[in-house]
Amino acid sequence: LEFSNSMCKIAWCLMVLATCWHRGHAEEGKNLQSLGHISMVIVGGTGDLAKKYLWQGFFHLYATEVAKSYTFSFYGGGLVSAEKGTPLLFGILKGLTCPPELTAERCALVKDQFLRLSQYVQVKTSEDYGRLSQQIQQQLEQEGLAEAGRLFYMSIPAFAYADVAEKINSSCRPSAGAWLRVVLEKPFGHDLGSAQILATQLGAFLLEEEMYRIDHYLGKQVVSQILPFRKKNNKFLEPIWNKHHIERIEIVLKETLDCKGRIQFYDQYGVIRDILQNHLTEIMTLTMMNIPANLSNSKEILQNKLQVLSGLEQLDKSSVVIGQYQGYTAEVQEELNKTKDYFSLTPTFAGVVIFTSNPLYDGIPIFMTSGKMLDERVGYVRVLFKNNMFCIQDYNSVQCKPQQIIFYLGHGGLQYPAILVSKNLFKPALVNSGWKEVTERKDISILGLALSDYHIQTPAEPREAYYELISKVLHGRRHSFVSTENLMASWAFWTPLLDSLAHTFPRPYPGGKANSDLLNFHLHSRQVTFVSEALVNVIQQGQEENFQVMQGKYRSAEMVSAWAKELVVRLASDLQGAAEEALQNHGQFHLALSGGSSPIALFLQLALHQYTFPWSSTHVWLADERCVPPTEVDSNFRSIHDQLLHNIRIPYFNIHPMPVQLNERLCVEEDGGALLYENEIKRHINASSFHYILLGVGQDGHTASLFQDSKLDDHGETLVTLTESPVKPHRRMSLTFTAINKAHRVGVLVMGKRKHELITQLSRIKGESYKYPITKVQPTNGNLTWYIDYDALLG
Amino acid sequence: LEFSNSMCKIAWCLMVLATCWHRGHAEEGKNLQSLGHISMVIVGGTGDLAKKYLWQGFFHLYATEVAKSYTFSFYGGGLVSAEKGTPLLFGILKGLTCPPELTAERCALVKDQFLRLSQYVQVKTSEDYGRLSQQIQQQLEQEGLAEAGRLFYMSIPAFAYADVAEKINSSCRPSAGAWLRVVLEKPFGHDLGSAQILATQLGAFLLEEEMYRIDHYLGKQVVSQILPFRKKNNKFLEPIWNKHHIERIEIVLKETLDCKGRIQFYDQYGVIRDILQNHLTEIMTLTMMNIPANLSNSKEILQNKLQVLSGLEQLDKSSVVIGQYQGYTAEVQEELNKTKDYFSLTPTFAGVVIFTSNPLYDGIPIFMTSGKMLDERVGYVRVLFKNNMFCIQDYNSVQCKPQQIIFYLGHGGLQYPAILVSKNLFKPALVNSGWKEVTERKDISILGLALSDYHIQTPAEPREAYYELISKVLHGRRHSFVSTENLMASWAFWTPLLDSLAHTFPRPYPGGKANSDLLNFHLHSRQVTFVSEALVNVIQQGQEENFQVMQGKYRSAEMVSAWAKELVVRLASDLQGAAEEALQNHGQFHLALSGGSSPIALFLQLALHQYTFPWSSTHVWLADERCVPPTEVDSNFRSIHDQLLHNIRIPYFNIHPMPVQLNERLCVEEDGGALLYENEIKRHINASSFHYILLGVGQDGHTASLFQDSKLDDHGETLVTLTESPVKPHRRMSLTFTAINKAHRVGVLVMGKRKHELITQLSRIKGESYKYPITKVQPTNGNLTWYIDYDALLG
Repeated sequence: LEFSNSMCKIAWCLMVLATCWHRGHAEEGKNLQSLGHISMVIVGGTGDLAKKYLWQGFFHLYATEVAKSYTFSFYGGGLVSAEKGTPLLFGILKGLTCPPELTAERCALVKDQFLRLSQYVQVKTSEDYGRLSQQIQQQLEQEGLAEAGRLFYMSIPAFAYADVAEKINSSCRPSAGAWLRVVLEKPFGHDLGSAQILATQLGAFLLEEEMYRIDHYLGKQVVSQILPFRKKNNKFLEPIWNKHHIERIEIVLKETLDCKGRIQFYDQYGVIRDILQNHLTEIMTLTMMNIPANLSNSKEILQNKLQVLSGLEQLDKSSVVIGQYQGYTAEVQEELNKTKDYFSLTPTFAGVVIFTSNPLYDGIPIFMTSGKMLDERVGYVRVLFKNNMFCIQDYNSVQCKPQQIIFYLGHGGLQYPAILVSKNLFKPALVNSGWKEVTERKDISILGLALSDYHIQTPAEPREAYYELISKVLHGRRHSFVSTENLMASWAFWTPLLDSLAHTFPRPYPGGKANSDLLNFHLHSRQVTFVSEALVNVIQQGQEENFQVMQGKYRSAEMVSAWAKELVVRLASDLQGAAEEALQNHGQFHLALSGGSSPIALFLQLALHQYTFPWSSTHVWLADERCVPPTEVDSNFRSIHDQLLHNIRIPYFNIHPMPVQLNERLCVEEDGGALLYENEIKRHINASSFHYILLGVGQDGHTASLFQDSKLDDHGETLVTLTESPVKPHRRMSLTFTAINKAHRVGVLVMGKRKHELITQLSRIKGESYKYPITKVQPTNGNLTWYIDYDALLG
Repeated sequence: LEFSNSMCKIAWCLMVLATCWHRGHAEEGKNLQSLGHISMVIVGGTGDLAKKYLWQGFFHLYATEVAKSYTFSFYGGGLVSAEKGTPLLFGILKGLTCPPELTAERCALVKDQFLRLSQYVQVKTSEDYGRLSQQIQQQLEQEGLAEAGRLFYMSIPAFAYADVAEKINSSCRPSAGAWLRVVLEKPFGHDLGSAQILATQLGAFLLEEEMYRIDHYLGKQVVSQILPFRKKNNKFLEPIWNKHHIERIEIVLKETLDCKGRIQFYDQYGVIRDILQNHLTEIMTLTMMNIPANLSNSKEILQNKLQVLSGLEQLDKSSVVIGQYQGYTAEVQEELNKTKDYFSLTPTFAGVVIFTSNPLYDGIPIFMTSGKMLDERVGYVRVLFKNNMFCIQDYNSVQCKPQQIIFYLGHGGLQYPAILVSKNLFKPALVNSGWKEVTERKDISILGLALSDYHIQTPAEPREAYYELISKVLHGRRHSFVSTENLMASWAFWTPLLDSLAHTFPRPYPGGKANSDLLNFHLHSRQVTFVSEALVNVIQQGQEENFQVMQGKYRSAEMVSAWAKELVVRLASDLQGAAEEALQNHGQFHLALSGGSSPIALFLQLALHQYTFPWSSTHVWLADERCVPPTEVDSNFRSIHDQLLHNIRIPYFNIHPMPVQLNERLCVEEDGGALLYENEIKRHINASSFHYILLGVGQDGHTASLFQDSKLDDHGETLVTLTESPVKPHRRMSLTFTAINKAHRVGVLVMGKRKHELITQLSRIKGESYKYPITKVQPTNGNLTWYIDYDALLG
């Protein structure tokens, strides 16, 4: 014991030395000079969380290692007076239990020390904080100690964070050279906007490096080892950790509890804010981030995490299924004092599919799911690899079974945290010396494989997440916490989904085993839906769900109208029909597209869902272009490229951007760009008749880049011309009405309430009007169809 | 019975009428006028196949339907005299069994009729065939019958086909207006060359529409219903029959028998020629072809099949694993009279992975596998769909199980032919009225699913493949046979693989259950390999297997040398290294590529295997270009496009073809294309220093398009110039040595024996030589590396 103790001491010193060396060089945590005195304050020190986890974590830390290098004092802060608070605090402290590595004798000794170092303080006003600061100062002077730092753990409701931060800042900062660290717990806002406000408030009083936002999942033993595991086994993992080998990633946290007693909080948040936005998102970033060169370089780690977040594709309503356990309504009515006809839309279950645009992972579905009142309590990340085996005979041999890696957070069938690697993958190295291989195997199966088919490693000693995290705060390991930037990126990712769900009814589920397969969902063209029909359609559906596509006439032409989403689906399908018809008759399909924002949804629909579109025989042309370099963001071509062309497999030769840039200048008459394009059209397209031209219309009635003041009728046989726009960039290149009206088919896509007035006016005008160039779209031998969404049609 | 008989009659007449109508309109089978007399001749009529299947098929056909519409005579032809042959034939005929639908009485009657209509004829010489023709003619006249057609079934070795065809053609063609149909059985050649010779020989005597090449798998009841099943259930299948939903296709034929007694034949062919090239390939085309508008339009069906074959990606040695059962050697030694040290390389097992370039299916691995002496006899096509389910709880519910469709040819666990659709997909319609749903379920599992998890349909009555096919010959259903064009396409696909395997040692396997997982193979980057290490490496490996990459110096520069394949892998990996380095230092990677044939293997390596290459930040430039339109096949850009760019996801803006075509003319000095390109280089590339330029070298020592007679030293600071080639097309555009020698890295790739002499000469020259422009590649501040394959280095 003596020996092992001194070994620990040496290891600990080395660690501290390494930390100091690193800090000096990286210029992080510049307030830390050397070992010294640390004051730890739990604001809300007699509350529930403090009682349950925090004091135990502090004590555990004190007892095992930290006290060997620092001296400490501990303060439990509260709003009540010292007379009232002191007995409360000592009630808690007396119940502290020792870490198992201490003997009973040593424990009694250490606990006695700990109690002597702890005291209750009232922290209500700035004066209170000033007094606390004075007291710390006096103690330091009396005992001749150098101050290492002050840690404030905010175990209070989030609405009080800014106020306390202000008081700490004004009245309780440590002496020069010592650090200040303030620990915060979620919720960090309710959506992007509120999170930004909170961050701004805190930022007024605390530096970024002084804030430690805890996500206690990052303190879970398995979660904290995801990165080290990936790095340690990189030789095996690097070749397979990509879209060519990974079939899917599942990030799952299932709970059996309900929300009873927490409704006040829960009903404002729901499962997505409570679990997905923070815990599961953090776990996802650890699973998918680039492995940092240095596992203790917080800056690099946080930066790599940020990269993951910013590479995620935007979610919308079709990326998610939500549910609510059937008892929830009654709980809400009771705890929020609501009447019997009230029900809440807050989801208690969510299944989400996430995709990233990172080329290494794009196309891999990341299923993220969590819920209350499910059949079991379990949490895990499962990385399932593609089945690349062909088994001639022995389907039950381990070779032929699923290949997967599981970061198992605990509970469930296994009942302990572990990293599991299926034996048909590789034998992983232990993440560190504190972990051990599991050799005894229960006769159970975990996610489709018998336990005996896995290599399993587990922490030698269980550690509470709070203990781990408090220790990391002390050591300034900022990468185990949530930086402001990463927090905002996560909210930026989740907020649009949350907004889109504001009026969506969750599917009711009975809870527990009785859920059966009611909550199973499946992926189809990047969208998820529940597999089973809902047994009872308890709640009537909103207007948006009652969509239908309407066909009719508009300005004597065909009109298709629907809600925006269905309209786009219909137009994409019509385009494919036109393409197939052209292919049959002409062998190729010549399609001219417009820029602007309306077609973006169409482009994504075409690229991601209309996957049998015959792109290899389709030529893509532009109806008009702005005179900017094609790589700039407001170039129509750039937008078509990024939304559509880059996502499909189309030959280079079939792409025809307008030559607005020639001789390193833009749209100069003498460079003859318009004529070049016209000649290209003539060379490729029979009778210069495009098979399909897709147009939009501006609020002023312009279409393509043909504006009211352009000499619209003077083009004669000219197909392409330079025009002037009333808005910037003024110079444009555009197909003429001569070219447009030669087309076999013309579609005009109009979406959004802002177009309603125009649509109304146009409906009253017969034939052409000088005022509205769009009225000149009158295909000579072709068909014109208007695609107008309900917003534009009905206002 | 009476009723059902007359119903059959009506149905049969309607069918014949439909056939006639169709034929008249489609102008197919124009010799068929009306019902009449048919002469059926089995050449080799007393041989094994005839005895086992053919006479039975003829009789069955006669007994059930055909005799209701035609009159018949049957001839068994052989080389022996009538005295010897007649008893042999009647020995066979007496053993014929009746189809189950006939009563015993009726059977006796029909069999008696059949025997009276059958006779043995000697068919050895042209005169014999002439006599047969006369005999037929006389009979027709005597009985006042119109001739409908003559069917010759060649039940003889393939080497005799041409000879018999010649005699039929010269001496036994039917009278005008009647059809001739000659049925042939595999082998149809041994590879593409021999198949072409055989086809040419036959083509001299028979019209294409007179040849009916049988693949008896096309007569198997399930195989013949693949297309009808797909068409009938198209509503369900169309949305999922594509790469977005199909995970893999398995086409499997496992046999338990060995080759004993057949070695004479088998050892020349092996499993790939015996099973994969014909049976499994036919089944694959049926599974993947476009569904024809009309299921009885032979032309359309054969055309659609051809499309499948021509869309397959080329196979090479890495697409296959081969094995040979351990008893095979002894059988070969015995049956071929070889000594004890002789062994054969003929594979008795093969596992192949096939990919298609059809955009609907590209990326789907098609596993095709067959072998002798395996653990069970079974044949099937399995279409396994991607697992898009997320099961929250009930992993054992049918929803959460594999989704698959199986065309089960028979034997195996099921023991009968069937089409199985997993219940979590859809409930399929019966393919036709002759099929029934299976309701009783054995307690077995088929390919991972319990039988009760499938919808199963099976033919109501079993039918022999030969019966089905002979009936189809009579009805002129050419799409159930192998057309010359399709046969050649199949051989064209398989021959390169067969050639590449000529000297490959198959893995030995013990046979039967003992194979265990020895033959399991897995897919990795489009290549397959056995999963387990061979237990005993019985046979020494050939030279090609002993590859190693060698590093050294060549002309004072770095040199990497290896066999072609490893060289390309190494170069691709070096390129990726260079790209990653450039990205880190400069944010982008500027790569200039040359045309020619050598880099094609590299491009494919980069596109298909180097899948983490950072294309989105790579700019692709050309080192030189021929003055032809970029879409023509001899354009360097076209080749780079088709082999590389079209297969990767690279932004349009990053692609920089040389502007050889301007103002609709090619490489005219005044159009300033070279200067345009130079300016583009300067605009994008820091100091005009490409990060990597990949060059080749011609046998005459030129590189890029810099030839001996170009004024190579006159370019000054010019980066791009027009040059003249001694070979067509003469005009070229090329980077100059000024541009080349500014590069950070230059690689010169030299492959093939034809370059050996040049490589030897160059090694003797120090410094520059006017005669060899390649010697002027001397990067000022960059690195030059030669990549020379062993063929070029060692001759």
